[in-house]
Amino acid sequence: MPSLKIYNTLTRQKELFTPIHPGFVGMYVCGPTVSGESHLGHAKPYITFDVIYRYLMHLGYRVRYVRNITDAGHFEEESRPALDKISVKAATERLEPMELVQKYTNLFHQAMDRFNCLPPTIEPTATGHIIEQINMIEDILKKGYAYVVNGSVYFDVDKYASDHHYGILSGRSLEDLKENTRHLESQQEKRHQVDFALWKNAPPGHIMRWKSPWGEGFPGWHIECSAMSAKYLGSPFDIHGGGMDLIFPHHESEIAQGEIATGHLMARYWIHNNMITVNGRKMGKSYNNTITLSEMFQGTSPVLDRAYSPMVIRFFILQTHYRSTLDFSNEALAAAEKGWNRLSAAYATLQRLSNSRDEGAGASGSPDPELEQKIRGYCQDCADSMADDFNTARVLATLFEIAPLVNGLEGGQIPRSGISQESLHLLRDCFQLYLVDLLGMLPDCGSQDSGKLDGVLELVAEMRNQARARKDYASSDRIRDALQSLGILLQDGKDGKTTWTEL
Amino acid sequence: MPSLKIYNTLTRQKELFTPIHPGFVGMYVCGPTVSGESHLGHAKPYITFDVIYRYLMHLGYRVRYVRNITDAGHFEEESRPALDKISVKAATERLEPMELVQKYTNLFHQAMDRFNCLPPTIEPTATGHIIEQINMIEDILKKGYAYVVNGSVYFDVDKYASDHHYGILSGRSLEDLKENTRHLESQQEKRHQVDFALWKNAPPGHIMRWKSPWGEGFPGWHIECSAMSAKYLGSPFDIHGGGMDLIFPHHESEIAQGEIATGHLMARYWIHNNMITVNGRKMGKSYNNTITLSEMFQGTSPVLDRAYSPMVIRFFILQTHYRSTLDFSNEALAAAEKGWNRLSAAYATLQRLSNSRDEGAGASGSPDPELEQKIRGYCQDCADSMADDFNTARVLATLFEIAPLVNGLEGGQIPRSGISQESLHLLRDCFQLYLVDLLGMLPDCGSQDSGKLDGVLELVAEMRNQARARKDYASSDRIRDALQSLGILLQDGKDGKTTWTEL
Repeated sequence: MPSLKIYNTLTRQKELFTPIHPGFVGMYVCGPTVSGESHLGHAKPYITFDVIYRYLMHLGYRVRYVRNITDAGHFEEESRPALDKISVKAATERLEPMELVQKYTNLFHQAMDRFNCLPPTIEPTATGHIIEQINMIEDILKKGYAYVVNGSVYFDVDKYASDHHYGILSGRSLEDLKENTRHLESQQEKRHQVDFALWKNAPPGHIMRWKSPWGEGFPGWHIECSAMSAKYLGSPFDIHGGGMDLIFPHHESEIAQGEIATGHLMARYWIHNNMITVNGRKMGKSYNNTITLSEMFQGTSPVLDRAYSPMVIRFFILQTHYRSTLDFSNEALAAAEKGWNRLSAAYATLQRLSNSRDEGAGASGSPDPELEQKIRGYCQDCADSMADDFNTARVLATLFEIAPLVNGLEGGQIPRSGISQESLHLLRDCFQLYLVDLLGMLPDCGSQDSGKLDGVLELVAEMRNQARARKDYASSDRIRDALQSLGILLQDGKDGKTTWTEL
Repeated sequence: MPSLKIYNTLTRQKELFTPIHPGFVGMYVCGPTVSGESHLGHAKPYITFDVIYRYLMHLGYRVRYVRNITDAGHFEEESRPALDKISVKAATERLEPMELVQKYTNLFHQAMDRFNCLPPTIEPTATGHIIEQINMIEDILKKGYAYVVNGSVYFDVDKYASDHHYGILSGRSLEDLKENTRHLESQQEKRHQVDFALWKNAPPGHIMRWKSPWGEGFPGWHIECSAMSAKYLGSPFDIHGGGMDLIFPHHESEIAQGEIATGHLMARYWIHNNMITVNGRKMGKSYNNTITLSEMFQGTSPVLDRAYSPMVIRFFILQTHYRSTLDFSNEALAAAEKGWNRLSAAYATLQRLSNSRDEGAGASGSPDPELEQKIRGYCQDCADSMADDFNTARVLATLFEIAPLVNGLEGGQIPRSGISQESLHLLRDCFQLYLVDLLGMLPDCGSQDSGKLDGVLELVAEMRNQARARKDYASSDRIRDALQSLGILLQDGKDGKTTWTEL
């Protein structure tokens, strides 16, 4: 395994990655709140962590990737009363909250499929882990770091900060926070304004509610991630990820709760992707520039001129390192589209070139040692870039350097004899591994099924002839029967060759 | 709204359907246990209730369709110790049970998509409703119809039967049941052999477990449906559905629990689909004839000769009334395929004919009144059939009667002037509504090649896996390269299996 370096938000530096249990990686990523349709802001973290997941598996780790669905009790500790986003919307739409949850979860999954994001290994829901959250809250209460007021439970940040390092992740100091937090009437039941809710008493009419030792209520936002990560990954686990906006208060609160409940700093490596902007401005309802994913795919957003395919958006996101900000604009997306088309074409060309046996290089000339060296260098660059904090931007930059070389080979400006078959395969495998397998980009080489069917049948006939040549009649018969069952008839010619007819 | 008649298992007769709240329908259908891949036995209920869901919406009802996912604590009250299927399998595969749950839930959803089944409005999980189940059990205990033994809670069927109608759905008598239930040591903690578990104490090493007032354990199988239906549909609600095999003990137990907990007979209309057989025999592990859905789609089942597309399977299921048994065999499926091709062709022809304005009938001749009358009759027949206990078999029979007429119009045997434009549109709309919108059949107006390609690729992947198994890397690489040159991408999975993606 190459040495993977990860920028750890916790230590503010790149560190060599060493998993807690050799060969295994536990990764928890904060998932979407399904009280509305996913927007562009969701695309970046999930594509980022999809690449990280793919890369860790490529390195040979058995990865347990947990990404939650926040479907209840999400309310932020802001200067306003606790607000369960889902219930509020359900009431206005006269829907059962779980109908909304289902609808937006389905839409989210569809979008992830279109982005070619692999499903996480476990996708737990907040409402599905109320008991686990209650158990953890009881534990924190027992240890004296929380208190009950009017059926709600609050985490005692002041007490925690007195004997633990509060602000370890975000770098914020409790004193600054105290000074900058406004005192509002609705929050008077808290001992300190910096305390946060572990459990909220449900007011009458609040639809989403569960029985608890403190009366009917619903969990605070932060507790779900602590409870679910501990359940499925143990404590501590390897990687905790999410958007940078989650560092405070969400992840800082997770750490505090988790430390009290489990006695451990919950995760070793904290990975945070930077935010996106739209035409230079932060995306948000107040700016009236939120773009939902379906608006993006369909071109119906008022902010962008036209539709961009999920692959173009994925490409655009991966062209920038995950820790950099990324600005969505028509110009930038159009450029990404061109870039993606270029690499996609180079990919197809490499497939073609490396499969055309007749023109096999190295046979009729001598490969150019400098060129050969360069090619090996490119491939090494890709490997190094991924190992250097998942630098997909540099991987793509390297593939862009390879593209003119591929075009030169295709167009004849670079003689085919100047490159060995081995190097050609190296280039092809490099595109395959980095562009397709790890960055998850799916080249669209146009699907003409019937042409493909012919081509595949050609291959199957060849396989069957080989099976017969090595007297493997079981395989030979298996091929015949499988094809017949698909309505394709194989005929064995006198010359020992197999042909087929469609029934 | 036309008068819909539904056969109610509860009353053993067809009844006029009247919803509890005018304009709204609440429907609960027992969903899959995701401890393994879905098999053919799952196709029938979910396709049946998908049509019912579509039809109720077509009638103008706002339908809340709840279908659960059983992901925990499923154990049957049979003559063997309580067995949590999921935990057992997880332990052997050395997986976290929720990883398995996620994997099989994803596969189930994919299969439902391929069958063109609409997602239910809410798809609650058993593990997501442990609190609701505990609350209901506490309520039943308080009312005196359950008892606690060694950390487990059992429903007192004997007591229930003394003042309620036990067997109301299944028609079974308690006396017969008592006589026919064997006494086993493992069940000795029950007062009566007919009692069933509401909550089971978790033995050491049992992975899936939750804290409860009775110690750590997991819920009985029956309680989840009572708790989740009450939560999302209230009590009583309109329709409870599932396979006929669920009538006893599952639905009978649900009724008993629900009656005590809510004071109501939980649902008004009980709809049960009949079972499927394979080559005349009940499908089951003991018969070695279980066919998983992916085996069905790919033609890899040892029981059937070849692959059948999801649409052919759907068509086959809907060609028989849901309350009849259905035997899967190569002959029957091949016949269904032909039938489906015929109706699909008629559908395409009707689209073509009704869109070609030049040949508009009625303009150049006088429509044949008898034919016009006949066409109106066909459409009425379809409407009547659906309203008569969802008789999809009769709807399809009527569409088969229309097909020769469509072919006659296409071939010129029936003059285009013999039918008015209005009638032609009526026929087109009739096919659209009944075949596509309500029966959910998606006509494939193009390539059968794509299905064949899938099948051949499956074979190629198999050949490649065999090549790799015998360390014949030349063949394995050759296959990969040849496919890549066709724009088909092979991916080597973690499990050593090869899958492919079209570029």
